[in-house]
Amino acid sequence: MRTHLSRELPALGAGAAVVVCGWVQRRRDHGGILFVDLRDRGGLVQVVFDPARPEVFARAEELRSEYVLEVSGILRQRPAGTENPALPTGAFEIDATGLVILNTADALPFPLDEPDIGEAVRLKYRYLDLRRAVMRDNFHLRHRLIRTARRYLEDHDFLEIETPMLTRSTPEGARDYLVPSRTHPGHFFALPQSPQLFKQILMVAGFERYYQVTRCFRDEDLRADRQPEFTQLDIETSFLDGQAILGLMEGLVKAVFRETIGVDIPIPLPRLTFDEAQQRFGSDKPDLRNPLEFVEISDLVRDVEFKVFAAAAQDPKARVVAMRVPGGADLSRKALDDYAAFVAGYGAKGLAYIKVNDPVAENGLQSPILKFLGVAVVREILARTKAQAGDLLFFGADSARVVNEAMGALRLRVGSDRGLVAEGWQLLWVVDFPLLEYDEEHRRFQAMHHPFTAPRSDDLSYLLTDPGRVRARAYDLVLNGTEVGGGSIRIHEPRLQEQVFGVLGIDAATAREKFGFLLDALRFGAPPHGGLAFGVDRLCALLAGAESIRDVIAFPKTQKATCPLTEAPSTVSAQQLADLALLSTAPRV
Amino acid sequence: MRTHLSRELPALGAGAAVVVCGWVQRRRDHGGILFVDLRDRGGLVQVVFDPARPEVFARAEELRSEYVLEVSGILRQRPAGTENPALPTGAFEIDATGLVILNTADALPFPLDEPDIGEAVRLKYRYLDLRRAVMRDNFHLRHRLIRTARRYLEDHDFLEIETPMLTRSTPEGARDYLVPSRTHPGHFFALPQSPQLFKQILMVAGFERYYQVTRCFRDEDLRADRQPEFTQLDIETSFLDGQAILGLMEGLVKAVFRETIGVDIPIPLPRLTFDEAQQRFGSDKPDLRNPLEFVEISDLVRDVEFKVFAAAAQDPKARVVAMRVPGGADLSRKALDDYAAFVAGYGAKGLAYIKVNDPVAENGLQSPILKFLGVAVVREILARTKAQAGDLLFFGADSARVVNEAMGALRLRVGSDRGLVAEGWQLLWVVDFPLLEYDEEHRRFQAMHHPFTAPRSDDLSYLLTDPGRVRARAYDLVLNGTEVGGGSIRIHEPRLQEQVFGVLGIDAATAREKFGFLLDALRFGAPPHGGLAFGVDRLCALLAGAESIRDVIAFPKTQKATCPLTEAPSTVSAQQLADLALLSTAPRV
Repeated sequence: MRTHLSRELPALGAGAAVVVCGWVQRRRDHGGILFVDLRDRGGLVQVVFDPARPEVFARAEELRSEYVLEVSGILRQRPAGTENPALPTGAFEIDATGLVILNTADALPFPLDEPDIGEAVRLKYRYLDLRRAVMRDNFHLRHRLIRTARRYLEDHDFLEIETPMLTRSTPEGARDYLVPSRTHPGHFFALPQSPQLFKQILMVAGFERYYQVTRCFRDEDLRADRQPEFTQLDIETSFLDGQAILGLMEGLVKAVFRETIGVDIPIPLPRLTFDEAQQRFGSDKPDLRNPLEFVEISDLVRDVEFKVFAAAAQDPKARVVAMRVPGGADLSRKALDDYAAFVAGYGAKGLAYIKVNDPVAENGLQSPILKFLGVAVVREILARTKAQAGDLLFFGADSARVVNEAMGALRLRVGSDRGLVAEGWQLLWVVDFPLLEYDEEHRRFQAMHHPFTAPRSDDLSYLLTDPGRVRARAYDLVLNGTEVGGGSIRIHEPRLQEQVFGVLGIDAATAREKFGFLLDALRFGAPPHGGLAFGVDRLCALLAGAESIRDVIAFPKTQKATCPLTEAPSTVSAQQLADLALLSTAPRV
Repeated sequence: MRTHLSRELPALGAGAAVVVCGWVQRRRDHGGILFVDLRDRGGLVQVVFDPARPEVFARAEELRSEYVLEVSGILRQRPAGTENPALPTGAFEIDATGLVILNTADALPFPLDEPDIGEAVRLKYRYLDLRRAVMRDNFHLRHRLIRTARRYLEDHDFLEIETPMLTRSTPEGARDYLVPSRTHPGHFFALPQSPQLFKQILMVAGFERYYQVTRCFRDEDLRADRQPEFTQLDIETSFLDGQAILGLMEGLVKAVFRETIGVDIPIPLPRLTFDEAQQRFGSDKPDLRNPLEFVEISDLVRDVEFKVFAAAAQDPKARVVAMRVPGGADLSRKALDDYAAFVAGYGAKGLAYIKVNDPVAENGLQSPILKFLGVAVVREILARTKAQAGDLLFFGADSARVVNEAMGALRLRVGSDRGLVAEGWQLLWVVDFPLLEYDEEHRRFQAMHHPFTAPRSDDLSYLLTDPGRVRARAYDLVLNGTEVGGGSIRIHEPRLQEQVFGVLGIDAATAREKFGFLLDALRFGAPPHGGLAFGVDRLCALLAGAESIRDVIAFPKTQKATCPLTEAPSTVSAQQLADLALLSTAPRV
């Protein structure tokens, strides 16, 4: 219907006869003339309706916001002084000689340029919400992200292969979404939490390099930024070790940053072991833009009078750390109390501190615990933390878990409160995760990633003797403190896989029932293989600067897992349930 | 682990030190030397283990089929006369100096080169089945198909946008797969049969050009080549009319043929109206490789003595057609009886024929019906069908539906039986489908495509007076007699949409309950829009020459909608059902 998109107009130059189509973004009446900003997928262009053409002008007077138009006219320079340099087409306007109103629009439930619409309304009228420039830009960025990743992988000989959505329920990890089978009453498919087993099967099949951008499903209670369905860039390779895989993926990440936000990421990316990340940042996904770090002082405080420190320092499962806050000596009593309450939320029993007004002067320090530490120890702490005049030291002393969680959270909070977090993009790999974590409640080991993750070969000897000590060949990609990807080298030997199932307390019969096909597959020539998956929604939200992944998903669910647009989920007919041999026990509403 | 893929070796030339990885495709012992064909994702290469290196040789003697190896060695020319020109690496071999057995393999349940494995076994051991060259080639073709389509669409400014998998059940068309909601007991999501409503919403949102390669779901009883989940290349555009959309799509199809099978498809593709396709071929998806055609003779036989013909000729809902089979006069009595039984399966009450031994000679014709037609009529039939000596004419006379179905099926069968179907690729668009079809059982009109399809504007006046006469702005793409895509221009005006719902007997309340969000969306500035969807599995199967779409789906379901690999669907725990507020009424097995 149109001859050109608005963005193509400047290249034509004044005098061109054009037909454009789009929406009325804004209408202004000025000096008896009618100006319309017409919006199409390429941008905006100003259309002028002149009363000198009475028929067209009369029709133009009917125009309201979001009417859909086909406008024919002549492109011309805007009069000097009326150009809009903010607009790519801002030197031009269309002198309208014809107008077709392709569709009208009712008054909108909210103005498109209103920034603070409630999310429920935005999702109900998603087709309006998505017209906003910020949303449109998000989906263009998402498109470029996925396109770039695909092309990179295709250029590196990866094959896109689709895996099933209707698959088998394996009640490990999160809760499955179930799909009743009509042809097999009493039987259910499950929607995949990830294509993990299928991609390993594809490696056994010899494809060597697989990728897929695919939907995954978890029926979990939704935390802040989770969705029941989410998109994963899923990758698996054969005959590559962890180093080679990380290298390949760094190239991918670099390409994505370049093509989405024009940022050049230096590679190789830094790598931190899980242990070091915990020691220095109390986190397995440290935000390296935040300069705050823990300093271990357990060895300094083993024998101090302050029992909280001494006890933690002497307990091999506990730790004592200091965290220096540059310039933090100006924190008020109230601020310190607030932080103490904050860490209490993470299980810390208190929040010791030292204000370093002057590290060398007599009475230059301020703290309730000074006298229980002793001058010599305090001096060593100041030296080790490199405390300067005006700084403040926070202390954490508790089980390593509580210290890491509480002080890790405090690190983020203080860094943010005090504007210490640098601009920019900090990527890193966290590697050498523990293979297992101990589940205190069920008194058994669980796989930290999943039960198919390969142990490091130099830790194999501990597998049966000291399983908690075994490190995995697993890696996470962390961007500005958020995990955006993760994976591992997998077990390719059936005997080792059976051993790991044993350590996890999965007996042979259960293993066979749940994963029999994988165990079988490993017996028929499985190559060494490994891979990873990126969380597309989360990566996209970060790159777009969106507050929520819901802003980079076209039709997301609410926190209550509903869709305000379609009003899903909904009730279904009795016949539909009967067809599935199911009865609902839900109370009728 | 490797330095090169097998396919990269020829470029290196003899003397290169290489490391290759892969599977033992074949092992031969010849003159005390051990030869292994090593298979990697790039192809095959011959590895030679010489007893002159006793340590490596001893390890090589352990090798069995499908063992996984890392071989180091020196590339060398094969001795003159032992080259294998069928293999890209066939001029070379690797003189192995090192061998690591990365994994062993049990004896396979079936030999990989055995062509006739039962499908149940193939699907259970899919990781072995997929190692076969024909299967690997299928997935490479599928990859190229999808990649080409994506790149074409991206080059034409289409945006990839993902639509939900967990959506609302709309019990129109096929049966939905339901997904119980745990957080909303008694409520259910449905897996999408297509993203139809969402892609229209995306047009209302202003994206203008959308595409997605996406999974769709239908819980139907599976016919020959259906799957519960299938892949659709889904496309929607705004501000384009049908002609422009077909033109864009022809470019896509041309690119796909070129990049998948190297065939240059001439475009624009032929277009047939639905009416003409029915008249000439009795089908809305005619295979144009088949030269057989119907010739309408109703006007010739209105008054003949043969009541079957005369009655049909006089009934406006019936028709009489002749179909000339070149050279068909040699068909035996038995063959003719077989064909008569065949069309009876489609509701035909008989199968009249004329053998044309000589069209001009006295007694040159052979047929039980000659005397009931009369000489003059027969002469006109021979002229109109251009019957030659040696031909045979088949006749169909019945309701148009029965003639089209029975004679359409006969056309395919005879074309195939007699080797009349040409090689090659015949693509065409079938256009101008009826908007509605009359459902005799429920005595009401149904949408032929879906209720959002736009009527042709020149037929709008019949919408309320003679709905069956209204043609839709709908189109199907047909390849060699199979529908591989289809779509339409959609209704973008709320009033017209409500009218069509009215004709379909969908009352306002029902329309609002089911499609309220679409009706709302149309009120807020919906652009003219339309699109289509390609069936990726079917198109891929045709291009690959695969017998079934199951051969181009990595992990397909059986005809009984089960997965022999994972044994899905499966029973689930009582707790899982209780969490969903569901009881199974299925008898326990």
